[in-house]
Amino acid sequence: MKFSIDRSKFVNQTNNVQRAISTKTTIPILTGMKLDLSENGLTITGSNSDISITSFISKDDTDNDLRIESTGSIVLPARFFNEIIKKLPGDNFDLEVLNNNQTLISSGVSEFTINGLDASNYPHLPEVETSNQLVFPTDLFKEVVNQTVIAVSNQESRPVLTGVNFLISNEGLTSVATDSHRLAQRRIDITSDEDYNLIIPGKSLTELVRTISDSVKEISMSISENQVLFSFDNVMFYSRLLDGRYPETDRLIPADSNTRITFDSTKLLGSVERASLLSHESRNNVIKLEIKTAEKKATLYGNSPEVGTVEEVLDFESLEGDDLEISFNPDYLKDALRSFGGNTNIEMSFTSPLHPFTLRPIENKDNFVQLITPVRTF
Amino acid sequence: MKFSIDRSKFVNQTNNVQRAISTKTTIPILTGMKLDLSENGLTITGSNSDISITSFISKDDTDNDLRIESTGSIVLPARFFNEIIKKLPGDNFDLEVLNNNQTLISSGVSEFTINGLDASNYPHLPEVETSNQLVFPTDLFKEVVNQTVIAVSNQESRPVLTGVNFLISNEGLTSVATDSHRLAQRRIDITSDEDYNLIIPGKSLTELVRTISDSVKEISMSISENQVLFSFDNVMFYSRLLDGRYPETDRLIPADSNTRITFDSTKLLGSVERASLLSHESRNNVIKLEIKTAEKKATLYGNSPEVGTVEEVLDFESLEGDDLEISFNPDYLKDALRSFGGNTNIEMSFTSPLHPFTLRPIENKDNFVQLITPVRTF
Repeated sequence: MKFSIDRSKFVNQTNNVQRAISTKTTIPILTGMKLDLSENGLTITGSNSDISITSFISKDDTDNDLRIESTGSIVLPARFFNEIIKKLPGDNFDLEVLNNNQTLISSGVSEFTINGLDASNYPHLPEVETSNQLVFPTDLFKEVVNQTVIAVSNQESRPVLTGVNFLISNEGLTSVATDSHRLAQRRIDITSDEDYNLIIPGKSLTELVRTISDSVKEISMSISENQVLFSFDNVMFYSRLLDGRYPETDRLIPADSNTRITFDSTKLLGSVERASLLSHESRNNVIKLEIKTAEKKATLYGNSPEVGTVEEVLDFESLEGDDLEISFNPDYLKDALRSFGGNTNIEMSFTSPLHPFTLRPIENKDNFVQLITPVRTF
Repeated sequence: MKFSIDRSKFVNQTNNVQRAISTKTTIPILTGMKLDLSENGLTITGSNSDISITSFISKDDTDNDLRIESTGSIVLPARFFNEIIKKLPGDNFDLEVLNNNQTLISSGVSEFTINGLDASNYPHLPEVETSNQLVFPTDLFKEVVNQTVIAVSNQESRPVLTGVNFLISNEGLTSVATDSHRLAQRRIDITSDEDYNLIIPGKSLTELVRTISDSVKEISMSISENQVLFSFDNVMFYSRLLDGRYPETDRLIPADSNTRITFDSTKLLGSVERASLLSHESRNNVIKLEIKTAEKKATLYGNSPEVGTVEEVLDFESLEGDDLEISFNPDYLKDALRSFGGNTNIEMSFTSPLHPFTLRPIENKDNFVQLITPVRTF
């Protein structure tokens, strides 16, 4: 295996693949990055137990300046290889595999000889049938992920809750996540010949959206029994799926409400951030919302026995229904508010101090809801 | 005590003072920030056992929009106070001390009530006679500090070595630091009626240069028995001095040399960074420099038994003297090279593989030297 290539173009691709590579893996060869050089181009692969990413650098794209002398494969220690390539002096570099996987990397005045590993020992990528693909506009897909993934659980006690549930049918895609304290649900219209009910690990989705560069217009999704494949540009992103049945969540979302108040998401976020400054310190991180409809007044209260108290008179758009005093974890509300994007009109709906309350964008009430369970403080 | 003030102007000053405040202090009141309001303006103070910083906000400067209703003093929990002020909604804020040190902070829709502490319990600042001041151009002073402080020791075993030795006489200022593996010495011309020999803690100097904003043209230095005071703009920066005698360092710097090679500092830094990529991994972080004058060749070698080897053919300006093979810690060389600034012509001078070698800027050989002790590898 021997080739030379444009250094910056190469680094762009290794940066993608690097996301899948963990230094903490128990399988030594997975700390490495796999290079496969064929007549058509170079395929770079990184993987861990959950996700695998491949990136293809085509010989036909002259920007890559890929010159192939001989094809072949090698696995190189990912962290070093990346650092080395980033720091090399030249615009291009040469890579050649010598005897017993020793690999010579040279550029300008620099010459590295790195101990590689036999590529034939590298695990095979999962097989995913790509005949039946779903296609999403990138922005919309990122929105769906970012708006739901905030609610996934970090506890491994109930593995399915560490993932986002994708329900796909001809009605569209409904994506749901909950850690049993809060819930996020987003619906979008898509057409699919088949129905799917899959649970994608939250970590995989977070890495995925980070990997998708802004230049990407469309992303394709292919689903197999226990794997999902997202492909865009020259990148293939594989994630394992979570086993098990995702809980029925529809019944958790209250149908009616007794108090409704609408806010500008950015204004409310500012108030919550201030109100939570002190509560963050105290043992139980809780703030209180007090609504007095007659007086047209809504106030947030936060406090820390050690430091002091804070009072925020809220600046709302409209208010109707019963008076209310309700306490909750401000971090959940912050996450929820950020998920709407800046300066969005949102409606908060409450039934009682002990029942979950919801946030919905006025413009898109039926398709997007954030739900938060209050905290009993008495 | 009651006043209102421009929020951003106030935050600029608390950011300075905050540098002196540690959350890890054993003296609870020092986790606080002291506010003293007089008829003329507001003085903010922060302190730890080593340094104290005060910043004065004048009533006469209308930009500060400081409106004084009643004078007084209070100590507020620094970390919270800072966060609160930063996040307040309005351009201005009001602060009022109520009964038993409760302090009301209000701005727009927000109202905080914070538990303050009695300012009379706050330690007094050191007394430093300011009649006899030394004045430095800020850039030059920062240069002197940054070029020497890199060599201070982190080990408390020999406390004096954790400081920078300032030797001041009518000949000028010589500042020296060494951790006994490397040494940095810088000389500048100043005129002083008195001679001083003081040791300023490296940490204090690092914080000091961070505190000096680019707009500051001059900085004044006043020295007392066990304290030094740096004043600039509206800021006073106090540091304790280290007790003890600083070692004689002149004799450590070799007078003559057997091999001399000159480099562009930036080019050499690039090569050292690459050569040290692998050695950083191996147990002993060492790289080897090989000089062959006859062949006009200088090469850096780095290696890690696990990962591999690297070879850097150096691009030098001139080379003369004996052949040489010498090994050293690349981190010391990197720090030294950075201290010269970019694209500076420097001369490296060697006597033998076991003797310290020096780096000097061609333009200023007599006034600035970095010295590095090699590592015996055989």
